[in-house]
Amino acid sequence: MNVDGTPYRTIWLAEDGWAVEIIDQTRLPHEFIVARLETVEDAIVAIRDMLVRGAPLIGATAAYGMALAMRADPSDAGFASARQRLFDARPTAVNLRWALDEMAIVVNSASEDARCAAVYARAADISDEDVGICSSIGDHGATLIKAAWENKGQNDPVNILTHCNAGWLATVDWGTAIAPIYKAHDAGIPVHVWVDETRPRNQGASLTAWELLQHGVPHTLIVDNAGGHIMQHGMVDMCITGTDRTTRCGDVCNKIGTYLKALAAHDNGVPFYVGLPGPTIDWTLRDGVAEIPIEEREAGEVTHMTGRTGNGDIAEICLTADGVNAANFAFDVTPARLVTGLITERGVCAASEQGLSALYPDRAQERETA
Amino acid sequence: MNVDGTPYRTIWLAEDGWAVEIIDQTRLPHEFIVARLETVEDAIVAIRDMLVRGAPLIGATAAYGMALAMRADPSDAGFASARQRLFDARPTAVNLRWALDEMAIVVNSASEDARCAAVYARAADISDEDVGICSSIGDHGATLIKAAWENKGQNDPVNILTHCNAGWLATVDWGTAIAPIYKAHDAGIPVHVWVDETRPRNQGASLTAWELLQHGVPHTLIVDNAGGHIMQHGMVDMCITGTDRTTRCGDVCNKIGTYLKALAAHDNGVPFYVGLPGPTIDWTLRDGVAEIPIEEREAGEVTHMTGRTGNGDIAEICLTADGVNAANFAFDVTPARLVTGLITERGVCAASEQGLSALYPDRAQERETA
Repeated sequence: MNVDGTPYRTIWLAEDGWAVEIIDQTRLPHEFIVARLETVEDAIVAIRDMLVRGAPLIGATAAYGMALAMRADPSDAGFASARQRLFDARPTAVNLRWALDEMAIVVNSASEDARCAAVYARAADISDEDVGICSSIGDHGATLIKAAWENKGQNDPVNILTHCNAGWLATVDWGTAIAPIYKAHDAGIPVHVWVDETRPRNQGASLTAWELLQHGVPHTLIVDNAGGHIMQHGMVDMCITGTDRTTRCGDVCNKIGTYLKALAAHDNGVPFYVGLPGPTIDWTLRDGVAEIPIEEREAGEVTHMTGRTGNGDIAEICLTADGVNAANFAFDVTPARLVTGLITERGVCAASEQGLSALYPDRAQERETA
Repeated sequence: MNVDGTPYRTIWLAEDGWAVEIIDQTRLPHEFIVARLETVEDAIVAIRDMLVRGAPLIGATAAYGMALAMRADPSDAGFASARQRLFDARPTAVNLRWALDEMAIVVNSASEDARCAAVYARAADISDEDVGICSSIGDHGATLIKAAWENKGQNDPVNILTHCNAGWLATVDWGTAIAPIYKAHDAGIPVHVWVDETRPRNQGASLTAWELLQHGVPHTLIVDNAGGHIMQHGMVDMCITGTDRTTRCGDVCNKIGTYLKALAAHDNGVPFYVGLPGPTIDWTLRDGVAEIPIEEREAGEVTHMTGRTGNGDIAEICLTADGVNAANFAFDVTPARLVTGLITERGVCAASEQGLSALYPDRAQERETA
């Protein structure tokens, strides 16, 4: 999408044809900085320190990270080591594992001499495939937004609440949850987005609000606490969030706090949709609450916050007294019973094994028999 | 309760016997500063700018503010003007109106010469009554915590989630939601408190965590998004929050985000209690969602945040790009159906007209016929 009028993806090959460039998302919204990755270690740091985040973009970065690794050492040992280290950078991200599995197929079928070029080619394919997937999610989701608008008599804008950042910054382009919003907006359907700030890392305030602003989509930033109130008062027509991992039964693991919004949507009859690309479905899992381990991150993300001071410097402040104990759970699981529908690149389905299996008979079958 | 080993209330008469002293809660947790109020304007600023907050403390401050007003001008016109200006400082706070009504009774029954002394005396009574009320709320609530502990076989601590600050800093002493926790802790029942940070003003992170730390109560600060996840995983035995205003049918208006926690508690079978003093009940209202106007505050509270930098300075940072639109709803309403019980100074009751009327037959009857 556009940044200051110029179209960008979130990851691309540098002009030299081998290094990889990304937008350093830790610097947004205060600075727009392009970071250059030259080694697999650079890619690991980019994933671990969240210069890139969002399931699809993590997958693409892992793929390009493997390309950088193969450029340095295309041996079997080099591949195995890079695969493990990339995986460990963000073990909850199922797209990361998927991308590394794809790379393994390429590596195993190529001689050492041919591996580097083959892996670069597959990384580029994965990026392009992601753009295609997100564009399709956008098309299918925009149909729902259009229907909501017609339902309102085509008068007022469709009010959509989203949590965290599942916009184009979380993917290679378009986004997952936000792709339908861009498609609807570009098609002339009036939309307005309620943006949850998404503590503790504030991806909504710093990324989603920024990208909507850049694209000219009307939006209002709110604290994570506000969603229940605005749903109670008829100010939300639908929710759309992304997901890091969805089970074959439709349980949705996403940024901490998603579950609370799904409860509020359910309590107020507001449709709650999740935008997801097929690779985000973890066919090996059924019960998300019981089976998905929830990453705990540093407590400092809760007690400290970073932003721009009055004179334009980036500063970190502490919100608490010294000695206060804190904990930082990064994700939660929204049970399928609270999800109205899953918006995938193959269409919209119920959040259930039946719904997902009907759209992905190939994948469902494959894993069931594995 | 104790601050650095010294017992404090949140409001008291200065040594000179006429000025009023308060803890400037906007400076916590980084600095412990006592502010001196010498005029009704000082009291209005203290209420409006939230140097004092919490329903009971706002009431006590309004009462002492009226004492300062009567000291300067004990005429009927002086009273009427001060009453209106104090009321306008925080129109959603029902305790404020209640305290001003109490002052009207005193003023109307005293000559101009006698008003000042009478109003000071009533303000002191209101403070002492609040301490008594909160202590009783604590005793009744501690019984519930003790029962939960016995239910767990007296092994593990009782895990209690709270939102915002309804501790002693929100009252004259003890607190409302936190009073039961202090009483249980002091009685040797092991408790552990999950403290919601409570965006946008962070009263949990800056006040509740601070006062629990000062009193030695085990606690863990979490972002507002985390409560659903920890309830899903059995890490919360009960929730206790405060309230700014509760309808005669038991709908609870409290800090924005309370409703989301009540939904999560309900979905996971976790008891959800609300600690409240009798004066917080608004007997004129039934349906809280429909009837209670929700204050909207400045968007800057959402886009900016204040804290302590590494060198100890207090700094404000901006979290968003320039041009991002934001909204700031200050409260929400939790429907009575989601509330397990109301903990009052007269005992614990169901969140219903029947429950409240049984505890407050005098008040219920009086307003019903008004």
